[in-house]
Amino acid sequence: MHYVGIDLGGTNIAVGILDENQKIILKGSTPTSVDRHYSEIIRDMALLVLRLLDEAGLSVQDVPYIGIGSPGISDRENGILQYSNNLKFNNVPMREEMQKTIQLPIYLENDANCAALAEGLVGAARDVEDSIMVTLGTGVGGGIILGGKIFTGFNGMAGEIGHTVVEQGGEKCTCGRDGCWEAYASATALIRQTRRAAQEDPDSAIHRLAQGNLGNINAKTAFDAMREGDATGIKVVNQYIRYLAEGIANMINIFQPAKIVLGGGVSKEGETLLKPLRAVVQEIAYFGGGDVPQTRIVRAETGNDAGIIGAGLLGVSMEK
Amino acid sequence: MHYVGIDLGGTNIAVGILDENQKIILKGSTPTSVDRHYSEIIRDMALLVLRLLDEAGLSVQDVPYIGIGSPGISDRENGILQYSNNLKFNNVPMREEMQKTIQLPIYLENDANCAALAEGLVGAARDVEDSIMVTLGTGVGGGIILGGKIFTGFNGMAGEIGHTVVEQGGEKCTCGRDGCWEAYASATALIRQTRRAAQEDPDSAIHRLAQGNLGNINAKTAFDAMREGDATGIKVVNQYIRYLAEGIANMINIFQPAKIVLGGGVSKEGETLLKPLRAVVQEIAYFGGGDVPQTRIVRAETGNDAGIIGAGLLGVSMEK
Repeated sequence: MHYVGIDLGGTNIAVGILDENQKIILKGSTPTSVDRHYSEIIRDMALLVLRLLDEAGLSVQDVPYIGIGSPGISDRENGILQYSNNLKFNNVPMREEMQKTIQLPIYLENDANCAALAEGLVGAARDVEDSIMVTLGTGVGGGIILGGKIFTGFNGMAGEIGHTVVEQGGEKCTCGRDGCWEAYASATALIRQTRRAAQEDPDSAIHRLAQGNLGNINAKTAFDAMREGDATGIKVVNQYIRYLAEGIANMINIFQPAKIVLGGGVSKEGETLLKPLRAVVQEIAYFGGGDVPQTRIVRAETGNDAGIIGAGLLGVSMEK
Repeated sequence: MHYVGIDLGGTNIAVGILDENQKIILKGSTPTSVDRHYSEIIRDMALLVLRLLDEAGLSVQDVPYIGIGSPGISDRENGILQYSNNLKFNNVPMREEMQKTIQLPIYLENDANCAALAEGLVGAARDVEDSIMVTLGTGVGGGIILGGKIFTGFNGMAGEIGHTVVEQGGEKCTCGRDGCWEAYASATALIRQTRRAAQEDPDSAIHRLAQGNLGNINAKTAFDAMREGDATGIKVVNQYIRYLAEGIANMINIFQPAKIVLGGGVSKEGETLLKPLRAVVQEIAYFGGGDVPQTRIVRAETGNDAGIIGAGLLGVSMEK
């Protein structure tokens, strides 16, 4: 048995073939070109799947279904992508359209949820039943895995943990609210925090690291400055970790998941980020007394393939 | 079939007998007197159960189990109350101790979770599978019902939604963190907000309503002042509703539950509270586009009996 997972993004369509051990054996991608009609985009997706199956010496008879992860809100039952800002899709009948080319069951899921599922089934949380994935990228993405399955809420939209207010009336968020966790703990937020701090400290190493142009600052810059012993770099990183910890402690107090899995660009700092983060979370989260087991905070393992893997395993998770 | 539910509180032990329609047919209570040894408290609990069963013309053969709701952290599997600050209990073998008097299965659960279960099974959320109960009392209590069952997390401590920070570095919370939702949205917080506002406005009707002593302010005072058209009363209530809405919008963005059920003292304001609250939540929560169904915010229905009913139905919920 093999599996096919599609990560449909605003820039690229990425497809992966997974073997019976749930490992990727072949990958391919093609530009999404979102300005086209959806039927063309979906036809390209289907053709890429067929080409990769062929390359792998497989046919559609060798896979039980096709899993698609995409941004936005899905009607899973009917295979309709109800709304995606990134893809400019509105009530697109993904399943029906895919089945014009490939006659297989089609599963549709939010991409952040697919990433969380990948970590929950074959990644850093594969040994536990309940985990929350937190992706620190352009935004703060979230996916909630309970009992080995994606938790979607009664209307399919659950898991927007980045859009929980941690500072009433605080930083403007892209979602329209003020003070969302995303506006403090995303890579975008870290870059903004780094830039502001550099503006206030003309002597900071950040200026040199950004080659004199604060527009060059990325999510690594403050960490690099910290590694050089730069006081402003240290301050920015400590404050960022505090922001991150507040939201993580919130998730622990609500869910008490066995694991919280950190992914996305900022998580590449690894233990440099995780070690002090765990210390702050330990201080502020509610862990009760005595020997009650505590949530572990770990780094994601499936990297950029998370979306493909999670999409490919959608059917496997449903049968659990 | 009848059921017995016990609400073990820091002041009183309340016991109720439920009939096959899951309605209370008889209730009784006795002081907890927490300074006694736990074996005496539990013996009193058991004797009260036996007395009420007798009064109802029933015997232990007529009930399948005894359900106990108590504050603190429970080891449900072993029937041990691991820790309760209110009861001064530490690793108390509740099941074993109860079974010395009554030889029935004993179920143990956190009291806030029992209240949420009561609402989820026979109260305001009986028609949906996923609901969150928010109790606005001394603190902000929480209980999460998913698929008709209490969600406890991997270590049994989930659902502390009152202890999620909505204002980083904000008001001191009883849990030790700064800026928890509880410190803004509990009845205690509302009383504090009312007192502070009255101190700043010597002409406010709040002074008269409190009979000239701000120590007399309760969770109703600001609402009463608002009803008189008092500007400070209106301001306090509006601000309080905003605080409440921020946390509720957070819960919606995370869980997208079919219903959020408000209980506790402040919820007695009914639509005076709920109507403006729904309007603010509508503005700030993430509801997607189009015709995706939205979380409804409703008032609890089981009132002070919630704890007894939820405890009594613990076994019923497990069999679902």
